[in-house]
Amino acid sequence: MAPASEFELIERFRERLPLRSAELRTGSGDDAAVTEPRRAAATSVDAIAEGVHFVRPQFPPEAIGRKALAAALSDLAGMGADPAEAYVVIGVPNDTPDDDLLAIADGLGQVAEREGVVIAGGDLTGARGLFLAVTVVGTEPKESRLVERGGARPRDVVALTGAVGGAAAALSALRSGARADPRLLARQLDPVPRLAAGRLLSEAGATAMIDVSDGLYADAGHLAKASGVALELRYGDIPADPALSDTALDPSEVAGLVLAGGEDYELLVTFPGDEWEPAQGALARAGVELSAIGSVKKGAGVTVSGAPAGVELAGYDHRRGS
Amino acid sequence: MAPASEFELIERFRERLPLRSAELRTGSGDDAAVTEPRRAAATSVDAIAEGVHFVRPQFPPEAIGRKALAAALSDLAGMGADPAEAYVVIGVPNDTPDDDLLAIADGLGQVAEREGVVIAGGDLTGARGLFLAVTVVGTEPKESRLVERGGARPRDVVALTGAVGGAAAALSALRSGARADPRLLARQLDPVPRLAAGRLLSEAGATAMIDVSDGLYADAGHLAKASGVALELRYGDIPADPALSDTALDPSEVAGLVLAGGEDYELLVTFPGDEWEPAQGALARAGVELSAIGSVKKGAGVTVSGAPAGVELAGYDHRRGS
Repeated sequence: MAPASEFELIERFRERLPLRSAELRTGSGDDAAVTEPRRAAATSVDAIAEGVHFVRPQFPPEAIGRKALAAALSDLAGMGADPAEAYVVIGVPNDTPDDDLLAIADGLGQVAEREGVVIAGGDLTGARGLFLAVTVVGTEPKESRLVERGGARPRDVVALTGAVGGAAAALSALRSGARADPRLLARQLDPVPRLAAGRLLSEAGATAMIDVSDGLYADAGHLAKASGVALELRYGDIPADPALSDTALDPSEVAGLVLAGGEDYELLVTFPGDEWEPAQGALARAGVELSAIGSVKKGAGVTVSGAPAGVELAGYDHRRGS
Repeated sequence: MAPASEFELIERFRERLPLRSAELRTGSGDDAAVTEPRRAAATSVDAIAEGVHFVRPQFPPEAIGRKALAAALSDLAGMGADPAEAYVVIGVPNDTPDDDLLAIADGLGQVAEREGVVIAGGDLTGARGLFLAVTVVGTEPKESRLVERGGARPRDVVALTGAVGGAAAALSALRSGARADPRLLARQLDPVPRLAAGRLLSEAGATAMIDVSDGLYADAGHLAKASGVALELRYGDIPADPALSDTALDPSEVAGLVLAGGEDYELLVTFPGDEWEPAQGALARAGVELSAIGSVKKGAGVTVSGAPAGVELAGYDHRRGS
């Protein structure tokens, strides 16, 4: 079958995606999408590239679509925003089968429907490697405000949703073709942005928040720098992905994944000392574990007490790859 | 010199860009940019890829940055929107010198400053070929409304700003390394989105508008389809880029560039018959030529009368390349 033309393919692509919402006056298909006047908006862009964030054929096309949108939405989760629209650019090598592209659309559509996001626009173009860039727009919830990185104050509790280290272990297994626990692989093949948790954390009085995409140590550094404070983390209190305990990794390798592995899409958040326990309760009722993993101090930078010797703390560098 | 880390490079990148505006509560550097509540917004994404939209070294890095942002802003021009923010994703092959990346930032910054756009966020990641995806957000002007593709009505005049065919000729010359007129090359190396013209055309009562990026014939087809009408274009009334007359191209080759060449970023617009002459006057006072090139009829599709025999009418297909 001859490949469809760009315009035919875009039509078929659009059939697979949620394209309309009440806030959207004009959706995909015009020069630009038009949204009605509304509350403050949070906008973020995130991209995933072949060879860096996913490998083929270990990532099926649907998983590539899911990961691209979930990773972008994680930035909105890190603001406590209500997701509204997404705009998707796909760069495609010439030899990509149309069916793979349509399966990418299916993956985007799955996450969009699950998270209540409209795909309001996009662009499809040739490229040397498969590349997806996703812009997401969210709005400030009525009941809470958007939470930035810069509000942490000395004596705040540092807390983390869920557990970390699994996504980097899964990417490594997928790259090498090693067998891995399906729970672990799901962190790469169907990552879930913590959108509901982000809103709850905002309502609960979070002073600063960031999604953990570059690795816990690196993202803690971003939050510390933006807030003008130091973060002291206690390694023993940081939940490692439970699936890591079934692997042959030694403790310093696990610590490397926990502290520097990227793409877990959990939320790192700070709270005034007396507000963090109610927050933990609210998250628990929503089915999300929240752990106190450190505290905010005067100063700068991030320290980690109790980590195994020799652990590699550098965050993932997307420019260099790794 | 060792390449800078991703985070260092992003810092240096940001120093080169306009990053703040009154509408922006939080800019580049947090999980998401936050914009204050405002009027209806128009949002569009556009991407340019190495080998498809630009070739190296014929496109200097600054020109790549300029083209990426100008092409995206052209979609806002096609809506008659006031540009506000841009979000830039850059996918970069590992062997790209940092200086080239910073020169791309300079190019983005030049267009952002000229057009009054804030670079409110971005992402930098590894990729197999250089790839830029730009999301632009504009607002509905106070004095006029956003103009979509779907409002053309039978008996409207079809009009075009400026002249077309030059950008495709320039890309071809740059690809082959042929000498070309600097006026022609500027259509690729420093394209200018018709933002002021788009707003004026909206104020003047445009019923439908689209920017000419896929080629005049293809974009006329998009407008006709969205409006549920037919467009009859008169080839003899369509201004060809004046620099084409100094080339060795024969008339059917010129017609191919005029009708199917992409990326001229002019505006194709429709007006009620009695409003188009005042519109032409308003554009002329702003220094933009507006030509009547056809009329809207009942029916579907686009016809072109008076074109040389054998002209190739297919629009540029970004998926296939050409």
